[in-house]
Amino acid sequence: MTSVDDFADGFPPSSSGRHSLPELLASASAEVLLLGLTPPRRSVSPAEAAQIANVTVARLGGLDLDGLVLYDIDDESDRNPEQRPFPYLPTMDPVVFHAEYLSAWRGPVVVYRCVGKYTEAELSEWLHTVDTDRVLSVFVGSSSSRKPAHTRLDRAHALRDQLRPNLPLGGVTITERYTRHGDEHLRMLTKQERGCSFFISQVVYNVDATKSLLSDYFYACADRALQPRPVIFTLSVCGSLKTLAFVKWLGVDVPRWLENSLQRSRDPLTDSYLQCLANARELIDFCRNLRLPFGFNVESVSIRKVEIEASVLLAKELRTMLR
Amino acid sequence: MTSVDDFADGFPPSSSGRHSLPELLASASAEVLLLGLTPPRRSVSPAEAAQIANVTVARLGGLDLDGLVLYDIDDESDRNPEQRPFPYLPTMDPVVFHAEYLSAWRGPVVVYRCVGKYTEAELSEWLHTVDTDRVLSVFVGSSSSRKPAHTRLDRAHALRDQLRPNLPLGGVTITERYTRHGDEHLRMLTKQERGCSFFISQVVYNVDATKSLLSDYFYACADRALQPRPVIFTLSVCGSLKTLAFVKWLGVDVPRWLENSLQRSRDPLTDSYLQCLANARELIDFCRNLRLPFGFNVESVSIRKVEIEASVLLAKELRTMLR
Repeated sequence: MTSVDDFADGFPPSSSGRHSLPELLASASAEVLLLGLTPPRRSVSPAEAAQIANVTVARLGGLDLDGLVLYDIDDESDRNPEQRPFPYLPTMDPVVFHAEYLSAWRGPVVVYRCVGKYTEAELSEWLHTVDTDRVLSVFVGSSSSRKPAHTRLDRAHALRDQLRPNLPLGGVTITERYTRHGDEHLRMLTKQERGCSFFISQVVYNVDATKSLLSDYFYACADRALQPRPVIFTLSVCGSLKTLAFVKWLGVDVPRWLENSLQRSRDPLTDSYLQCLANARELIDFCRNLRLPFGFNVESVSIRKVEIEASVLLAKELRTMLR
Repeated sequence: MTSVDDFADGFPPSSSGRHSLPELLASASAEVLLLGLTPPRRSVSPAEAAQIANVTVARLGGLDLDGLVLYDIDDESDRNPEQRPFPYLPTMDPVVFHAEYLSAWRGPVVVYRCVGKYTEAELSEWLHTVDTDRVLSVFVGSSSSRKPAHTRLDRAHALRDQLRPNLPLGGVTITERYTRHGDEHLRMLTKQERGCSFFISQVVYNVDATKSLLSDYFYACADRALQPRPVIFTLSVCGSLKTLAFVKWLGVDVPRWLENSLQRSRDPLTDSYLQCLANARELIDFCRNLRLPFGFNVESVSIRKVEIEASVLLAKELRTMLR
């Protein structure tokens, strides 16, 4: 197992002179802020992709982010028999989007890899070439055990450990899996053993269950004399009933009271925005009190402009709440 | 179905000149404060019972309560195969304790009736004689469907409707039943149809699930053009690991994060006290925002003096938070 301290060199500090993302993640009192982006559709022209990248980087100008997250989107329709509220459209490989279009973004990037999409040869090649001075990664396993996977998650972890142990690696953590099976904190420990030095959650709407997961994770670390790794909570506003349906389709547990309230709201965007802030406040207080390093990752699961703009605003407000 | 407005006469106002409990319960913006007491063990002498009553009434002196709740304790060991952390000891009938020992308490009393313990004749006799100027009641069904019941809950409701429709009647509401079956709000509506004009919860430690129950109840009323009835949340401090075990034995869902925290706390009494206050704050904000009438009932599930004293302090602090 490698330590995060090995990765602290080389990364540029953030624009405001804060520590670099790997340094922050190595600290026992990390409070980091990321923003998650989905690369453009694979069908866009190079000119359109460049335009999207420019608009995006311009939007992030006023934000003091510690890094970007670039998602690797997989067709997950196999894991939910219900119809997907938004159609699945293949998106550009985040590695390609980063390398070819995001040069204006100087900060660190956390590149997601849905490892089941890639052969071992493809993953190995990327691991050999990845610029560990700018890139961190999060490996994601298959969305369903029934789905054929080119590479399994444990194998991908082993490859990275063998080929590029200095690539800072994160794991996904899912509150809903904790609620269903009760052992998500133990899965986090397993990922930690395999080299994960931070965690990024799926979209969190159930704060109470998330607190239980965090608590079990924290005390499981304490019982094993392990330092708990930073847990970065993904927040996403929910600006319409269709977005709410999509969030639920993705498997996010939205508490019934909140679902009722958003469904009857005259302004679900504002209400979900305020709820995200309240959830962040509660998670901040909980983590600080427990002395668990943490952070936020703001994403917009919708591509509607108002929802993206609300996400940027949310990131801005979250920054004022973090140390 | 009778309306609460029929019961507003006759009851004494509270010491501070607030409206009487039935008036408060009839109001669409009720915020009531009750304190729940378990009568003394059946084995105590009359002198001991009188002494317990005197100490109790003296303790309540500084509190501006809207009423007392007197529990009717049933041996519920049938509903949980685990060993009961505290032994079951038969307690005095709350009707007897009220009539013979609590004359120093001038305010309203909500008398619980575990209806399965009584024959129809016994219940009818009590219904004929109950002083509806001082007494409200909550009927409780059997703790288990496997347990032989002298009178079933629906039959008890029918008897009260037939014999003493002006007896203000409440129903029990249980968050954990909502979590398990999802229809507790519909059970509340059924009880409301059968004459229940308010609800008292079991001990609440899971606020998030309780908010979902309240939300479903509120909107189920709205969809049927019914006025939602006040929901009174029972709070109980948890001053030791044994009390925590008992609370869990009673079926109360304590969120895992809170259980972890209390188990590792150097001062579970203070921590659970602060948690009760935080839970109350969250429920107050939620109910006011929804315009759902509500209240609190403070009980101590333990008979340890420090826990009883903390309950009294909690009631005092809750009063300052209510309108």
